[in-house]
Amino acid sequence: MKIYLTELSIKSRERMQIINVTSEVSGVIERSGIRDGLANLWVPHTTAAITVNEHDPDLWMDILAVMERIAPIKGDYRHNAKYRWAQSEQNAHAHILNSLIKPFLTIPIADGRMLLGMWQSILFIEMDGPQTRTIQIQIIGE
Amino acid sequence: MKIYLTELSIKSRERMQIINVTSEVSGVIERSGIRDGLANLWVPHTTAAITVNEHDPDLWMDILAVMERIAPIKGDYRHNAKYRWAQSEQNAHAHILNSLIKPFLTIPIADGRMLLGMWQSILFIEMDGPQTRTIQIQIIGE
Amino acid sequence: MKIYLTELSIKSRERMQIINVTSEVSGVIERSGIRDGLANLWVPHTTAAITVNEHDPDLWMDILAVMERIAPIKGDYRHNAKYRWAQSEQNAHAHILNSLIKPFLTIPIADGRMLLGMWQSILFIEMDGPQTRTIQIQIIGE
Repeated sequence: MKIYLTELSIKSRERMQIINVTSEVSGVIERSGIRDGLANLWVPHTTAAITVNEHDPDLWMDILAVMERIAPIKGDYRHNAKYRWAQSEQNAHAHILNSLIKPFLTIPIADGRMLLGMWQSILFIEMDGPQTRTIQIQIIGE
Repeated sequence: MKIYLTELSIKSRERMQIINVTSEVSGVIERSGIRDGLANLWVPHTTAAITVNEHDPDLWMDILAVMERIAPIKGDYRHNAKYRWAQSEQNAHAHILNSLIKPFLTIPIADGRMLLGMWQSILFIEMDGPQTRTIQIQIIGE
Repeated sequence: MKIYLTELSIKSRERMQIINVTSEVSGVIERSGIRDGLANLWVPHTTAAITVNEHDPDLWMDILAVMERIAPIKGDYRHNAKYRWAQSEQNAHAHILNSLIKPFLTIPIADGRMLLGMWQSILFIEMDGPQTRTIQIQIIGE
């Protein structure tokens, strides 16, 4: 069994932003030398998430619009009220959405490639940017 | 370490439909010969998802009703408007729900069986059917 | 490759309750002796879930408030109506939220520790308590 661990760094430019990281993750898989196994992507943040979806910036705005309906940025939150003196803590919406969109993905690898479907791209979701963020990538296999 | 990879084919008959695939997945675990490890189920589609829940078709209608409230099929979406000439692309609701329900599950295996609880069935969720769909199943263990 | 499997027992005291289980899970990782690999946490229940978020009980109330908006406890559900004679089955809200919050997490381990970010705690989410609940923890690695 081989285990390979590395991390990606992502810079977001907006408060809410979807960023396609598929090619960066594919590069990591290739460099790992692991041909068959699992890639676990882990976002070590509570106000950003990761998902898989089509590369369509219009769709991304639709996704962000539904997220805003579920947990509005300007909602009435106890977390924000407690830290009302701290602009950087007005982010309960992002924490809540993190527990819905989730901060991890586990993707199978075969013959050196992720088994992504034709329309699947790996999307990092910034929900409290702009910030510099990390994705941990651990690959287990042979 | 053993790695076993196979895929299941699923035919949906409705636009929105929940299909219990537990026995098909259990059969794959058995055929893999892996007694202890992890099963990673991966749906290589952006408009279908997979989850675990009780086998109760009434509950499934409740789940679909909440999904329709979160992202209505007939909602106002930029993705749908951009492709308004294409009936097959009127599916932003399904893309959005894919990023909430998620297209993967990682289930522990012990003594040759998935550690599913008494009420847990593996449910494939079609959100833009009817279609023929795939579930990739990769098992890692011994 | 080493595979380690154990379970945690959790007692909830409320109908809806978030419980920080990070230190219990960290203890399991340490006892496993596995230094590098993946920890898969699996909740074998259809009315409880698991997630990662900040240790802030005010935020937890914000999360539960959004969950109540998505799938109200007193909502109109076919599952509840079918079992209207059974108080213990008035829990469609919990089943629905299980498929959104999800009953599993896969966390990378390096140098004997989970790669949790500074603000990430592992949170068990009871949605139909009080009950005694289980988390299965399977660790694969070296």
